[in-house]
Amino acid sequence: MTGAEPDLLIEDLHSSLVDPALETMNFLNEVAARFPGAVSFAAGRPHEEFYDLDAIPRHLRTFQRYLEREKGVDPGEVRRTVLQYGRTKGVIHELLARNLRLDEGIDADPQSIVVTVGCQEAMFLVLRALCAHEDDIVLAVAPRYVGLTGAARLLDREVWPVRETASGVDLGHLVEQIAAARAASKRPRACYLIPDFANPSGLRLDLGTRKALLAIAERHDLLLLEDNPYGLFQADDEPRPPTLKALDTGRRVIYLGSLAKTCFPGARVGYLVADQRVATATSATVLLADEISKLKSMLTINTSPLTQAIVAGRLLEHGCSLVAATRAENAVYRRNMRLLREGLERRFPRSGPLKVTWNAPAGGFFVVLTVPFAADDDALEYSARHHGVLWTPMTHFYGAGEGGGTHQMRLSVSVMTPEQIDAGLERLLSLVTDRAGQKAGSVSDAQGKG
Amino acid sequence: MTGAEPDLLIEDLHSSLVDPALETMNFLNEVAARFPGAVSFAAGRPHEEFYDLDAIPRHLRTFQRYLEREKGVDPGEVRRTVLQYGRTKGVIHELLARNLRLDEGIDADPQSIVVTVGCQEAMFLVLRALCAHEDDIVLAVAPRYVGLTGAARLLDREVWPVRETASGVDLGHLVEQIAAARAASKRPRACYLIPDFANPSGLRLDLGTRKALLAIAERHDLLLLEDNPYGLFQADDEPRPPTLKALDTGRRVIYLGSLAKTCFPGARVGYLVADQRVATATSATVLLADEISKLKSMLTINTSPLTQAIVAGRLLEHGCSLVAATRAENAVYRRNMRLLREGLERRFPRSGPLKVTWNAPAGGFFVVLTVPFAADDDALEYSARHHGVLWTPMTHFYGAGEGGGTHQMRLSVSVMTPEQIDAGLERLLSLVTDRAGQKAGSVSDAQGKG
Repeated sequence: MTGAEPDLLIEDLHSSLVDPALETMNFLNEVAARFPGAVSFAAGRPHEEFYDLDAIPRHLRTFQRYLEREKGVDPGEVRRTVLQYGRTKGVIHELLARNLRLDEGIDADPQSIVVTVGCQEAMFLVLRALCAHEDDIVLAVAPRYVGLTGAARLLDREVWPVRETASGVDLGHLVEQIAAARAASKRPRACYLIPDFANPSGLRLDLGTRKALLAIAERHDLLLLEDNPYGLFQADDEPRPPTLKALDTGRRVIYLGSLAKTCFPGARVGYLVADQRVATATSATVLLADEISKLKSMLTINTSPLTQAIVAGRLLEHGCSLVAATRAENAVYRRNMRLLREGLERRFPRSGPLKVTWNAPAGGFFVVLTVPFAADDDALEYSARHHGVLWTPMTHFYGAGEGGGTHQMRLSVSVMTPEQIDAGLERLLSLVTDRAGQKAGSVSDAQGKG
Repeated sequence: MTGAEPDLLIEDLHSSLVDPALETMNFLNEVAARFPGAVSFAAGRPHEEFYDLDAIPRHLRTFQRYLEREKGVDPGEVRRTVLQYGRTKGVIHELLARNLRLDEGIDADPQSIVVTVGCQEAMFLVLRALCAHEDDIVLAVAPRYVGLTGAARLLDREVWPVRETASGVDLGHLVEQIAAARAASKRPRACYLIPDFANPSGLRLDLGTRKALLAIAERHDLLLLEDNPYGLFQADDEPRPPTLKALDTGRRVIYLGSLAKTCFPGARVGYLVADQRVATATSATVLLADEISKLKSMLTINTSPLTQAIVAGRLLEHGCSLVAATRAENAVYRRNMRLLREGLERRFPRSGPLKVTWNAPAGGFFVVLTVPFAADDDALEYSARHHGVLWTPMTHFYGAGEGGGTHQMRLSVSVMTPEQIDAGLERLLSLVTDRAGQKAGSVSDAQGKG
């Protein structure tokens, strides 16, 4: 759309609209749309092979039966529960609490759960509640999910980065940043992280780091925002490490849950657990969840009880275990991560000439590849145009001016077939060879001229 | 919950949490919960008698068939459309555009439509886009829907009231408020109103007022936020007046649509039409809808395509006409409004001793009753306790310090049966008699003492 007389100027609209964080998804989608024939390691969405529209009515009936038989609700009230306006905090809180106990060992009071429009709304609501004043900031492990940055930008709040290490978080840097923020008269309210198979880095915190984080949160009066969309997708059958929330004896953790990857994204059902106690003016103490619920009532009123019902039906059909519900998907993720690792090892042997390395996440959707050239937006476009392969520049997961990720790509295999992984890796190899050659070439050109 | 050691202080959380606008719904729900036996004129939710859970799978199949047959989408893509992440602006925009043309005579480019999590999210997004700076304010016809006030409060933005008249809006006051805001270095960005059967006042703008509003918007460089949840529920078969958007030749109107009352609230599907052209830094002109879509991607990612599909199925089953889809509901609303009016006339005759008056909306859910005593929160509690009848104090629909509505109740009949309307009016009569008597009594007491 061009040439038409404008009605508004972009500079009169909210400044987040020109923030790189909000452009990221648009840019990546646009590149993908321009090269539809490219093999994509960029898509981070869940595997969709097992999606079944015919299961939707069954899930709905399962939830109906649960309300009628287990909860003794009469049919008229069941109809109202699913189709009318309803409880702001949601209608499946008891089932989510059951799931958290079963799959995560988290003992959550159902009243401390707020069902949200995906995890994104949960993030926004928590930031809105906590970042009350202009000088309130949120810390976040960098690289980080762009949705966190975006939610903070909608609220005109700063996100301060905390460095990542091989074990997940640079705890020393976290403490430094808390001190630096306070020295700058800022109030660090919380630190956001994905402790299990992070987006984008794939990293998982070890148990020691988890405990140390909780101790730091306690000592420095900070909350931890634990986002856990991928935790169930561990690549082996070893016991999973406990979530921060399962270890949280001091109510330092707000847990952000997603059902997008364990059920399906189209339900737009996520939730948060906020069991913190808030002292009010009347000296009564209320749950943070109830305060957040008030904010939600002015943002989206309530989360669709119809999609809550459908997701709950799926939960109930698996005894409230999402581990059980996602066995087929998890088998695909395990296979794909193995194929990716094996394919990388075959094409980029450590002893070979191409200086390509990668990390080895123990699960999840993502692997980070480090390459011997700038893996920026131009390189992505070049890659799509000349080699037919898409990936995500890691630079998009750092804030403006933070640096980092300049020679790194995020590879995601969550929606790929074995054939696509193989073809994609062949194309990546040709891209790396091309770029490494170009670099070598330009060096020898320079030598020739010199 | 009391007595527990607090983790947080309310004054460290966002200030909207202590705003009366956010307490309103809690207070009203709490009174309703404490007096479950009371007859309620308070509930503003849509009629639910015709809700049918068995229709949900059919609606879903209808949308599937539409995608497959009319749009030529293959079954795998249909599954992805409904269950995966998807288009931020939504997947039913073409059907909504068809509906707007059919039912409202609005010629909307489908690309200018953003499907939202109910109309509440649409309001929030529009305010976020427009109220960029601290000094940006929104005007709103008072009394007003509390959700508008709440959304503005989440963003720390002021709402300035514009007085209501018998024809809907005091246009002189609107111009005064624009001037006053600018004189105070504020930037009035838009004026929010419900032109048809407003919540809470029931008023509808006449055609002249609509045209004058558009002229003022043009002259004073203001946008109009037209919220239209009740417009279809006219109490007679006369032609409905055109919406502001249908009259809008200068792209002055952002239209806010709700499907909560015409389909069902549990879908949480609303939308906005924002066809304004935004000049960007690169001199390209983009649709405001696309800018708002970027904000949405950081708030809720997208609106559940599953509930969009279900709502669209219902639309398709009625040839995309919501007038056709809501004939049964509309018949109930018409009957109930008639019964309310007749019942009021019988119990509070104009020549009688009880000085009770009411307005006569031409449709919608709401009637405003003016009574000879303060119809405040205490009166509501007294009414519930001693007379078993609930209603909504009109004071809740005015901002703090605005005054107004002190002797007024909002009566809603949308979910009532004829028997409940009759019983409720009997109880209202006994409340008014009691209160009028008390007043008389206290006067004679005072005389007796004097």
